[in-house]
Amino acid sequence: MSESSSRPVDLTLSCPAPLQDDARVLLAHGGGGRLMHRLIERCFAQTFRNPALDLRHDGAFLPLPSGTRLAFTTDSYVVRPLFFPGGDIGSLAVNGTVNDLAMCAARPLALSAGFILEEGFATHDLRRITASMQSAAAAVPVPIVTGDTKVVERGKGDGVFINTAGVGIVAEGVDVAPTQVRAGDAILVSGDIGRHGVAVLAAREGLAFATTVESDCAPLVAPVFALIEAGVSPSCLRDLTRGGLASALVEIAESARVAIEIDEAAVAVTEAVAAACEILGFDPFYLANEGCFVAFVRPELAARAIERLREMDGCRQASLIGHVRETGPAAVTVRTRYGGRRVLDMLSGEQLPRIC
Amino acid sequence: MSESSSRPVDLTLSCPAPLQDDARVLLAHGGGGRLMHRLIERCFAQTFRNPALDLRHDGAFLPLPSGTRLAFTTDSYVVRPLFFPGGDIGSLAVNGTVNDLAMCAARPLALSAGFILEEGFATHDLRRITASMQSAAAAVPVPIVTGDTKVVERGKGDGVFINTAGVGIVAEGVDVAPTQVRAGDAILVSGDIGRHGVAVLAAREGLAFATTVESDCAPLVAPVFALIEAGVSPSCLRDLTRGGLASALVEIAESARVAIEIDEAAVAVTEAVAAACEILGFDPFYLANEGCFVAFVRPELAARAIERLREMDGCRQASLIGHVRETGPAAVTVRTRYGGRRVLDMLSGEQLPRIC
Repeated sequence: MSESSSRPVDLTLSCPAPLQDDARVLLAHGGGGRLMHRLIERCFAQTFRNPALDLRHDGAFLPLPSGTRLAFTTDSYVVRPLFFPGGDIGSLAVNGTVNDLAMCAARPLALSAGFILEEGFATHDLRRITASMQSAAAAVPVPIVTGDTKVVERGKGDGVFINTAGVGIVAEGVDVAPTQVRAGDAILVSGDIGRHGVAVLAAREGLAFATTVESDCAPLVAPVFALIEAGVSPSCLRDLTRGGLASALVEIAESARVAIEIDEAAVAVTEAVAAACEILGFDPFYLANEGCFVAFVRPELAARAIERLREMDGCRQASLIGHVRETGPAAVTVRTRYGGRRVLDMLSGEQLPRIC
Repeated sequence: MSESSSRPVDLTLSCPAPLQDDARVLLAHGGGGRLMHRLIERCFAQTFRNPALDLRHDGAFLPLPSGTRLAFTTDSYVVRPLFFPGGDIGSLAVNGTVNDLAMCAARPLALSAGFILEEGFATHDLRRITASMQSAAAAVPVPIVTGDTKVVERGKGDGVFINTAGVGIVAEGVDVAPTQVRAGDAILVSGDIGRHGVAVLAAREGLAFATTVESDCAPLVAPVFALIEAGVSPSCLRDLTRGGLASALVEIAESARVAIEIDEAAVAVTEAVAAACEILGFDPFYLANEGCFVAFVRPELAARAIERLREMDGCRQASLIGHVRETGPAAVTVRTRYGGRRVLDMLSGEQLPRIC
């Protein structure tokens, strides 16, 4: 799906050979798909090996001697353009990291913020971005308690890159991880998909659709804790960022070694996003989201979970999209609207660079 | 001192006026001096205001309900060149953040690592860097538990930028902060100063000195905990990174509202660093270090502290360099080798961009 056609074909895109010594980083290595996973496995995961990292979750769990479990996560943000309908790099940098904590069933305790500024960047844009960060942080709420600023020469950066890291406290008695996923689990999606991807693409390319699509950028702490407090302890949570719903499901299926089946018709996509996808040739299953997550829950809890989610802001479209069929070879199958079946894989190329 | 002479003079360099709406980010905003402090105050500190951030320390303290105090800190690394005598961006990214935790009297619990890669960056360099990170992390020891990878287009980054954040557990009963500094406190420096700055500059410019100067890049957890375990609970700790010894002392004097007096002759500088400074016109007091810190301790503990430090690797040159004279207007005065006095201030311009 959606391999970049405007870039020279690189052998590493199509060939699953090991990284060669003369290999170079491609844009697709940052795309959330197969190549990124390979880079992470070979350059980072094998080198840094430890039990927390080996879980391959959105964040790491750190047990403290007191019995408290911390969640710890980080993301860098390089989105282009910096401002887009529904958000900007600042709100994204807060919500993205807050959501990785939420996906660990953790309530955010504090964020850090590291800025890499390009010489010549307008300070009024920087102030607009920090104001947006503060407003996003206050909405969670979570304080931004520590930070760092670096400046690189003109032409060695791109305005501003932001890294945020987050520390949170994991809800007691909740154990979310791909390894907790079991045959029979119901798979819920918290809302309609694809809005962030379309919003950023439209802003970047100056595309005007009949309806302006706004990013879904929003914090997911409240819906996750609404589930937990309603007695629904999910086996796994994952926000649908780079690589979208498809990549999240494939990642979880591979980590949990399960087969997953979902219904295309059960996945909410707004008319505006569907129309944009048709015009641009994108598949909404692979588009990035910044306020949408998938939850795996025991089947008997699915109805309660959906009911509770639909009471929450941003989750009115929550739906049951499928089930974990069995353990065994990892696979994600979609029953299409027309009665057919297709198998989802991670992106093998690059769909939309610098989406977050 | 050391204003950059090769760049056009910008009014904001010499004029302490507020940031104007049309102001732009200068390299000097990342230099660790007066301009960086102004940017931090106006764009970040005022916007993100909260008690942890308001402490203006190297990291934030986060009290947990269990009574444990966490330290949390972050730094992005943009050093150029990526590899230099005594270290590389990988060892720097680990030790820099580990040292910010150590300056909070915290034992590192876990690090995160966020990579911003430029399209075209050689993966064998990336692997060399991650191996160096792992080796630096193992020496502390601290695991790298979570991470993130982004890729930007060629010409929008510079090979690789790394952000690390760190979480640590603060030693019980120890309360380090600029606000703890008292009149009479002895001021110790853990080693000789200026090696990191000279090493990076020489590598960048291809300068060959009679002796190759290696960066002092090293973790400072062991010496800090050696002090604490010897019963020396410091009132304040600060590692001497961007802006060097001078900026660290001025920052602390301003936060604590105290006058500081130090002896130039008591500050260790190797012959090689002194010679390089003489040739290049640098002042070692402003050169960056990555394995050297200043400790403020009660005067009756100074002798024990120096004795203990000198037993530790990397701290054989530890020395008493001066005292806190009194509370009152913040000032840092140096008694020179020749009996004169000079007042230290933060850098007002840019000494050496991208030193860390």
